[in-house]
Amino acid sequence: MKIKKKEVKEYHQSSCGIFFEADGFLVDEDSPFQNIKVFENDFYGHVLILDGLVQTTEKDEFFYHEMLSHPALSVHPDPLDVLIIGGGDAGVLKEVLRYPVRSVYLVEIDARVLEVSKEYFSWVPAALADKRVELVVADGREFIKETGLCFDVVLVDSSEPVGPSATLHDSAFYIDIKAKLKPGGIAAAQAGSPVFHRAFLGRVYTELEKVFRSVTFYTGTVPTYPGGLWCYMFLSDRVVPLETQKKLPPGLKYFNADVLKAAFALPSFMR
Amino acid sequence: MKIKKKEVKEYHQSSCGIFFEADGFLVDEDSPFQNIKVFENDFYGHVLILDGLVQTTEKDEFFYHEMLSHPALSVHPDPLDVLIIGGGDAGVLKEVLRYPVRSVYLVEIDARVLEVSKEYFSWVPAALADKRVELVVADGREFIKETGLCFDVVLVDSSEPVGPSATLHDSAFYIDIKAKLKPGGIAAAQAGSPVFHRAFLGRVYTELEKVFRSVTFYTGTVPTYPGGLWCYMFLSDRVVPLETQKKLPPGLKYFNADVLKAAFALPSFMR
Repeated sequence: MKIKKKEVKEYHQSSCGIFFEADGFLVDEDSPFQNIKVFENDFYGHVLILDGLVQTTEKDEFFYHEMLSHPALSVHPDPLDVLIIGGGDAGVLKEVLRYPVRSVYLVEIDARVLEVSKEYFSWVPAALADKRVELVVADGREFIKETGLCFDVVLVDSSEPVGPSATLHDSAFYIDIKAKLKPGGIAAAQAGSPVFHRAFLGRVYTELEKVFRSVTFYTGTVPTYPGGLWCYMFLSDRVVPLETQKKLPPGLKYFNADVLKAAFALPSFMR
Repeated sequence: MKIKKKEVKEYHQSSCGIFFEADGFLVDEDSPFQNIKVFENDFYGHVLILDGLVQTTEKDEFFYHEMLSHPALSVHPDPLDVLIIGGGDAGVLKEVLRYPVRSVYLVEIDARVLEVSKEYFSWVPAALADKRVELVVADGREFIKETGLCFDVVLVDSSEPVGPSATLHDSAFYIDIKAKLKPGGIAAAQAGSPVFHRAFLGRVYTELEKVFRSVTFYTGTVPTYPGGLWCYMFLSDRVVPLETQKKLPPGLKYFNADVLKAAFALPSFMR
């Protein structure tokens, strides 16, 4: 076995985290918004890191991308127009395109994330080339405030509540999202780790309860995210029956109708 | 902040894993069976490592110990006599003792694991001192073959299928367990990571299907275990209704009646 020269770490707290070995970085640059790194790991394949935080890997991308997308998309009876805020690695986009949607807007602030992802993650070129996709390089915060469009489903694929994603975690942003949801619309957002970001989750819940009639947390595994357990929010103004309303698209590796229900069964420490 | 001098790693594959910083080891010794390490980490507290593999930490012990114990104990209508094989850190024992059991046998091969755990994990002294507990320092494999006792619930808290736990993963061992289960009895065992040990899980399932009428996998999060998602087996000769048969004991941090059902909803890639 070749000796790997580089060790890449993400600290989950100041004294612990995850490490990957790599031959070196395929990408290591500062965009106007953040530091972008890509490297290849023997087990996880290509790994994308933004400002030191693992965003996605070839091996385990489906855990996160399926769980951010399919609960909202499968519960909504007819998601025609979808908005993704963030998500420049196009993993969530790939999942949305499995449904017979009419349009998908992908609003990513950092053009370099899109370019780098296109080069190193195999699903990206086909997803971005799909005729239903409108790519907008802009601040999602500004876009949602100014757009004249309305959506059936909005998916917020932000990074952690630091750096360029900081403003994607306050209630003003979600008030704007609510204003652009069609009747019966659903928003879903990643919400961090119930193990490492508990205080943050509590604050977000309190804030968003003032915005949406129904604010529900759900969880799913993501092997390369801190603690392996990730939290998502399901936001809507109608009380949505938590059952898939349609036949699921083929090819899913994590999500299914049983997983949907199970995802909303929270461990006692999260209640 | 003090600079931590030592970095402790567990490799999940040859090129990736988890790391902890520590001031140094509180315990680092070779017992007749394995290498035993204990250190203190700022986030996870005391951490027990056997042969390089994280067994438990003060911070996240409940994820694993509750999920190995409570599904079997809560589904069984009246678990009076319980056997734990392995589990020298007494975390599973602590969970079993929450129920009005008559006897609990804890059969641990390595007396040093018991002694070290007693010193560094706060729940151990009280659990081991409980009058219902019979502590047996012996090979679980031999014990189950030779004992004249029968049990309502058997919990196999082995480490990975290498080292002293290697023989706790073949079907002969489970044939012996089955022979010592009372009618309606249930066995549960940790079964590894669905992300990192998939081939192993497949083999185990095929083997155990020949032994028990009902072999079901279930999963739960364990932040410090590889991939954050852990797999357990639920083994019985009757088709057990997967519902809690009783009021759950107070104080549980992870397990509840909804989590029980959710744990058996497997991601598509595990089906």
